[in-house]
Amino acid sequence: MKKLMNDPKNVVEEMVEGYVKAHPDYIKQLPENDRALVTARETSDGKVGILIGGGSGHEPGFLGYVGDGMADGVAVGNIFASPSPDPILEVTKAIDKGAGVVYLYGNYAGDVMNFGMAAEMADLEEDIQVGMAKASDDVASAPKAEKEKRRGIAGEFFIYKAAGAAADFGYDLNEVVRVANKANDNTRSMGVGLSPCYLPQTGKPSFEIEDDEMEIGLGHHGEPGIEKGPLETADRVADRLVQDILADIEINEGDNVVVLVNGLGSTPRMDLYIVFRRVEQILSEKGIKIYRSYVGDYITSLEMGGCSVTLMKLDDELTKMVDHPVDCPMFVQK
Amino acid sequence: MKKLMNDPKNVVEEMVEGYVKAHPDYIKQLPENDRALVTARETSDGKVGILIGGGSGHEPGFLGYVGDGMADGVAVGNIFASPSPDPILEVTKAIDKGAGVVYLYGNYAGDVMNFGMAAEMADLEEDIQVGMAKASDDVASAPKAEKEKRRGIAGEFFIYKAAGAAADFGYDLNEVVRVANKANDNTRSMGVGLSPCYLPQTGKPSFEIEDDEMEIGLGHHGEPGIEKGPLETADRVADRLVQDILADIEINEGDNVVVLVNGLGSTPRMDLYIVFRRVEQILSEKGIKIYRSYVGDYITSLEMGGCSVTLMKLDDELTKMVDHPVDCPMFVQK
Repeated sequence: MKKLMNDPKNVVEEMVEGYVKAHPDYIKQLPENDRALVTARETSDGKVGILIGGGSGHEPGFLGYVGDGMADGVAVGNIFASPSPDPILEVTKAIDKGAGVVYLYGNYAGDVMNFGMAAEMADLEEDIQVGMAKASDDVASAPKAEKEKRRGIAGEFFIYKAAGAAADFGYDLNEVVRVANKANDNTRSMGVGLSPCYLPQTGKPSFEIEDDEMEIGLGHHGEPGIEKGPLETADRVADRLVQDILADIEINEGDNVVVLVNGLGSTPRMDLYIVFRRVEQILSEKGIKIYRSYVGDYITSLEMGGCSVTLMKLDDELTKMVDHPVDCPMFVQK
Repeated sequence: MKKLMNDPKNVVEEMVEGYVKAHPDYIKQLPENDRALVTARETSDGKVGILIGGGSGHEPGFLGYVGDGMADGVAVGNIFASPSPDPILEVTKAIDKGAGVVYLYGNYAGDVMNFGMAAEMADLEEDIQVGMAKASDDVASAPKAEKEKRRGIAGEFFIYKAAGAAADFGYDLNEVVRVANKANDNTRSMGVGLSPCYLPQTGKPSFEIEDDEMEIGLGHHGEPGIEKGPLETADRVADRLVQDILADIEINEGDNVVVLVNGLGSTPRMDLYIVFRRVEQILSEKGIKIYRSYVGDYITSLEMGGCSVTLMKLDDELTKMVDHPVDCPMFVQK
């Protein structure tokens, strides 16, 4: 394991410090808790606050998505570990503008527990109304009949995008939650892992894999996938990912989708565009229209190798949310 | 070597095909040459055309920087190899709006030869005036007295940014070249390599390095650096890179700079922000002001591990260029 770091114990603190120094016009730490970051810009009274968060090591997720058009604040956890309720509560207090706060997070036990506790504390201690929506886009993580057990992976990006836009448009708390849930309902992802990442503190790989193998359906903390097999071509990998996604959600000829081909950390853009090329061919053959494409590192796992494909099926409302401009340090859309 | 690819012979064609399909609102291939890509948007008559290019494998460089505020077209080479004169000439013809075209490229023998030949052909055969500016920002690649021998690395991004803005502001050909050269004169970079990339066709690593070593001053095709030594902490690496840069260019207390901490491909954002943190500390101690920061993968070398640090010293004119908005598929600045 080779990393550009100092003491492994301090990687999260030092990353956050560097991040805030790099983008002071965008983001600041709260004095109450250095894992609680909020937008440095004024947000308008009456706007629903959007709070995101999760473990570190997924950058640009999650702190990279605080800014205009997406989240108002983020609670930062340790590497691949949920933030504790304290920073979540501090961010909640800071970004509430009288209309309540919506928590967006991935469907992991630690996140569900800690965001849930923070929501209770916000309600009981601070009288702030909290709504919640969980990302559960990974089709490989549980059967269709048990969608509530599924993990959130890169599709979380679309949920932030949709909910952030809805809040900007002045939707109320329940409506923002409804839009976030609709985005999640319409989103499916599946990934493939080629090589592990290494945890800074232990130096251990996140999963074991041979030099000529890939793992289909791997989770973004190294959770086991559906099957391990020989490394296949980019086209066959794309075929498999899209096939499993389309078997899980009805997307018909003439429907519009947004596509995300997400790199897990160490996968070159070249490889991601080669995968996108095949995704586009498949969808085009089926008469499914790509409304907009995102290709790059959106939610990573340190230096893990591999990618995921995400499709979100659009309706008029989600199209409007997708088109809404964003200005964050790690993602800008005009 | 594990890659998401099909036939290694086709990686560049398939990447370009995927890229154009992903971003049809931004970029298109010319029918005359599929390695010749130009903006899909209207550019105004009388604007100087900006043409960039170089080898593939450096994505987002170079095709990722075609769009509003940066380049009007790009000539695409094979992996780590200069584009041939043909696509350069085709792009030149397509983007000339009567005010001539400026070629921006790195100072490598192949690029110098091929862009030079294309410029001659444009002049003699097409009567198009061509200006040229080369990036030579890598302080590790030749001594200060022989700056004309230096390689261009990540600092090339600032040269595109400055020249692209100058062309948008209506500067004429000579003025755009002057601004590009000023940006280059004011820019210095230095990198550190931790792990090699693998060439798709051969599967061979771009350089050899032990598990506990780093190479200071490494070039972004694996060209040897200044010294190979034990892997040091992020702070010591940043100290060394900034020290060598500041020994090479006079930047005084009160001066403004833009900073780029560029990942070479497989280095997590976490590591890059930890490096940035120390760069900011050093500059702050010296009273040098950071006007704007860029941290991420801007010019990569496939999945190479490591990073570079770039500083560009600002004056009023370069500040105006840096502030100019950009809208490209792989880089947006509001």
